[in-house]
Amino acid sequence: MISHILINNNGVLEPADQAKIPAMDHGFLYGDSVYETLRTYDGMPFLLDLHMTRLERSLGRLSLTLPGERKDLEKEIDRTLSGYTEVIKGEWETQPDLALRIVVTRGVGPIGLDMSLCPETRFMIYASPIPNFPDDLYTHGIACVISSVTRNHPNALDPGIKSGNFLNNILAFRDAKDAGAKEAFLKGADGFIAEGTTSNVFMVENGGLLTPKAYGILDGITRRTLIEEAHRAGIDCQETDITEERLRSADEIFISSSIREVVPVTTLDGKTIGDGTAGPVASRMLKLYRERVQAEL
Amino acid sequence: MISHILINNNGVLEPADQAKIPAMDHGFLYGDSVYETLRTYDGMPFLLDLHMTRLERSLGRLSLTLPGERKDLEKEIDRTLSGYTEVIKGEWETQPDLALRIVVTRGVGPIGLDMSLCPETRFMIYASPIPNFPDDLYTHGIACVISSVTRNHPNALDPGIKSGNFLNNILAFRDAKDAGAKEAFLKGADGFIAEGTTSNVFMVENGGLLTPKAYGILDGITRRTLIEEAHRAGIDCQETDITEERLRSADEIFISSSIREVVPVTTLDGKTIGDGTAGPVASRMLKLYRERVQAEL
Repeated sequence: MISHILINNNGVLEPADQAKIPAMDHGFLYGDSVYETLRTYDGMPFLLDLHMTRLERSLGRLSLTLPGERKDLEKEIDRTLSGYTEVIKGEWETQPDLALRIVVTRGVGPIGLDMSLCPETRFMIYASPIPNFPDDLYTHGIACVISSVTRNHPNALDPGIKSGNFLNNILAFRDAKDAGAKEAFLKGADGFIAEGTTSNVFMVENGGLLTPKAYGILDGITRRTLIEEAHRAGIDCQETDITEERLRSADEIFISSSIREVVPVTTLDGKTIGDGTAGPVASRMLKLYRERVQAEL
Repeated sequence: MISHILINNNGVLEPADQAKIPAMDHGFLYGDSVYETLRTYDGMPFLLDLHMTRLERSLGRLSLTLPGERKDLEKEIDRTLSGYTEVIKGEWETQPDLALRIVVTRGVGPIGLDMSLCPETRFMIYASPIPNFPDDLYTHGIACVISSVTRNHPNALDPGIKSGNFLNNILAFRDAKDAGAKEAFLKGADGFIAEGTTSNVFMVENGGLLTPKAYGILDGITRRTLIEEAHRAGIDCQETDITEERLRSADEIFISSSIREVVPVTTLDGKTIGDGTAGPVASRMLKLYRERVQAEL
């Protein structure tokens, strides 16, 4: 719900239903912005350093700069977290875990594509409560589809840049919605499975994990963490090209995201994957991920 | 200059430096919006019907709807034009010709890719004075480059949808800027010349015109008008695949856009095209276009 979202609007804490941005911001005119999504556990942002580093990488790719120093933005994140329950009067006794969307936008400038028209970037931090995902999500999983929409080509707009140009993902998600599913996988221009609209994808084959190579996708921080955890636990995990046919014949499929962690995919285009409930490898990866979360805190 | 722009902000006329949009508008979060750019001559919007029809086509492709009836939006355009000099106190004795940017945005909704999260679309009309382009622009032309950035693939995000996802164009324009040029041409994934960042491209070979086919590009209304005018004047004009090499060896090159009409390209990647000034065919097409403008008024 929008009324539960707090926005740090370039330094001003405001409820989301009151926050506004300039109509001449190129983030609105052109989707010319980058962002990161991360979450808190027990009030602490998880793997913030990795997200900040990736944000800086996205910024650099678009010749954008932080509006201040990295440590200034980190202070603003802290200020957003500590101000949350003061500004947002929810039904919580203690602060809920929050999803943070950190946006840096090109800023205000005349209409035109020249980046130098906008002298100052702006930041926004959206903080919203993590929904209470039902246990069912992790035991019964979700339905997914393979989208008819092709993932943006890296030489057109690299999916490795986490930007405010999201129509490619929105169009793919429409395919999921139309089929009553919860996520859509896009194939790259090379025909291989790339990623979900807001997730990375893993499949299980003969007890080992396969996930698409980090080219033409967003190299998710949860994805990277899961690969590390698999290696540490002695589970084989290959980053490789995955055809649609191979994915369809997987023993298990799951998606990873910072907010939802590890969610089994139990039907694909209406066909049951495995026995239609969370498989042993997906469940183990979720457990390993949550143990890592506890270890990091 | 921003202070010379009037915005009709979903029904409210405001100077652009005061106009704001909701921070939860998906046009900002995701670039989830479509737009049209057109201009007035003697106070009258030129080829408004064609632009409105194309706007409706873009909307349909993204499952967006107009916030009201088409005639309501047309009334708002009239209201923007008639209110312009009341709100914007410029140095003009009479109203200058205006560029109009008509935007329809997904509207306000919670964070998420599901289009149904946003119950109401919103519109904005940006009206800004057409710059006094120097005559030199039309006689000496501009420098262009061929960008290293590939045009979005039609199956990823069709360039035929005039959307608020403009980073592909912005990245290509960066190539132009870096080279001291004024426009960049993108090639499609098929390797053929597609279009400029905010223009269509024509070339002259043996006295005839060639322009890329209307696939994987925005089928410009000025482009379409020029093709009609060429046919009417007995100038051969083919819509065809154009290789980079063929473009480089053109006798003349020019770009078309609603705002700038017909502008000769007199250097490409630093190499002179023709004799480095406006060629006879480009000059003739500009004249034919301007005669068409007068005829339509």
